[in-house]
Amino acid sequence: MSPILVVGSVALDTIQTPAGRRADALGGSAIYFSVAAHIYHPVRVVAVVGEDFPPVHREILNRPGIDLAGLQVAPGQTFRWEGVYGHDMNERTTVVTELNVFQQFHPVLPENYRRSGAVFLANIDPLLQEEVLDQLSDPWLVALDTMNYWINNRRQELLRVLRRVNLFLLNDSEARQLTGAENVLKAAEGIRMMGPSVVVIKRGEYGALARTEHGWFSIPAYPVEALVDPTGGGDSFAGGMLGSLARQESLDENCVRRAMAHGTAVASFAVEEFGVEGLMRLREPDVRARVRFLSQMTRFDPD
Amino acid sequence: MSPILVVGSVALDTIQTPAGRRADALGGSAIYFSVAAHIYHPVRVVAVVGEDFPPVHREILNRPGIDLAGLQVAPGQTFRWEGVYGHDMNERTTVVTELNVFQQFHPVLPENYRRSGAVFLANIDPLLQEEVLDQLSDPWLVALDTMNYWINNRRQELLRVLRRVNLFLLNDSEARQLTGAENVLKAAEGIRMMGPSVVVIKRGEYGALARTEHGWFSIPAYPVEALVDPTGGGDSFAGGMLGSLARQESLDENCVRRAMAHGTAVASFAVEEFGVEGLMRLREPDVRARVRFLSQMTRFDPD
Repeated sequence: MSPILVVGSVALDTIQTPAGRRADALGGSAIYFSVAAHIYHPVRVVAVVGEDFPPVHREILNRPGIDLAGLQVAPGQTFRWEGVYGHDMNERTTVVTELNVFQQFHPVLPENYRRSGAVFLANIDPLLQEEVLDQLSDPWLVALDTMNYWINNRRQELLRVLRRVNLFLLNDSEARQLTGAENVLKAAEGIRMMGPSVVVIKRGEYGALARTEHGWFSIPAYPVEALVDPTGGGDSFAGGMLGSLARQESLDENCVRRAMAHGTAVASFAVEEFGVEGLMRLREPDVRARVRFLSQMTRFDPD
Repeated sequence: MSPILVVGSVALDTIQTPAGRRADALGGSAIYFSVAAHIYHPVRVVAVVGEDFPPVHREILNRPGIDLAGLQVAPGQTFRWEGVYGHDMNERTTVVTELNVFQQFHPVLPENYRRSGAVFLANIDPLLQEEVLDQLSDPWLVALDTMNYWINNRRQELLRVLRRVNLFLLNDSEARQLTGAENVLKAAEGIRMMGPSVVVIKRGEYGALARTEHGWFSIPAYPVEALVDPTGGGDSFAGGMLGSLARQESLDENCVRRAMAHGTAVASFAVEEFGVEGLMRLREPDVRARVRFLSQMTRFDPD
């Protein structure tokens, strides 16, 4: 089957958490996603960097299963983000966001990317997400992420894209904001009416909740006792989930559930180290062990 | 086996939520717990009310499986609580707390209560919880609830009681506050060192997480789409859980897991109506159906 296509950001992240600090680390939604997903299935990256993008970062990404032919190099500086996490890792303060080359970015898919079967539209302007879809010929899986900014400022465009999406990943507050429903369960049901047959509510340390045509599925977070850097947790979850789905070639209930377990496990490795460091050394047997752990940690006999 | 003993509050609750308002409704931790637990196993109530306690409320409690011989009537007014919930039902404002007869309360166990096998020490002053334990002869199950106020103001007394407890139910912030650990998983492990072999972290809409000698167990909340009144959710959870445990006569891993599922299911019925109204009509087959639903909603095949 064809590689997974991801369009999103590549960033130089400066991150401070109670566990330490990293400057100009390799980051961005497309990166976390790709490094997570390629454990399962090859990935094609559509994104942009500036002329300052360090060769050492490109070297990190130079591994089997990650195709950078769609990574544009544009005149100017790479997208930069700087964030600080307090002791409560659930809260972060964004100190710097420099869009730089990302401001002029328009995704252009190399010819051989257009027949990708599975695509992840990471958190970028819905207009760009739409441009990507317009260049694709009949993908079987279109997954989407977004954020409050686009829900507020690109609502119509987002709704238009949503009609072409079958898997939507978002968090509690985004689901409420998009639908106006206070109850997140009602919000998830409402979002299914907008297009996606599978809606996954990401809840960080509380795990994830899915609404499918069969009803509800809930999975807890893997119990991470030494949280180092939550950055990229959501994109790593998406990477593990889509990697698993691409391998299974199906959005059936059992496949979605298994894929969410893989996303959960992969994300747990991501947040145990800074940036993509935790994902870089990750091998599939390590993920499988945590997936089995999650199965054990949720199982009970009702009778 | 002997009935479950509960010591806690009986209150007249005035509750306002987006779904409506109830004045002077039957409430209090001992009440929610008893009404929830008696679906499974008989309950003995140790608490105090004032001379104003309405006969209609006593009538509500007059049902097989609820023993009120330990309910003292003291000169003065019954404990009153008034709270308002906003659109986000997770946040509530306490408008009125009148301890009234509760201020002078000392639990006195009728002779036949002293050999109770399972006891729930609801959220009251740890000194009173200790007085109850001192009157009991060798219960096999001692479960405890508490709150931030006691953690701050009766810390030594609480720690003393904890050494005699084997099941401790508390929420995230209480666990952090008690241990000083920012990570709730580390907090739960730390609390096990204080005495209780089973620590249950209650997380409201996110479900519950248990730390036992075997490791972690997580269960989501039952998906309640029409939340009416969250009051008593935690005590109903405890009631369903202890009711199930008392029936199983065991704190084994499988029994704890099954009991948490029952607590979760019972609590979901409690919050779907005002006060104890939802619990009053509840029958065991209805609970069992939700327990099975929870089992289905969490199950996945890891391979």
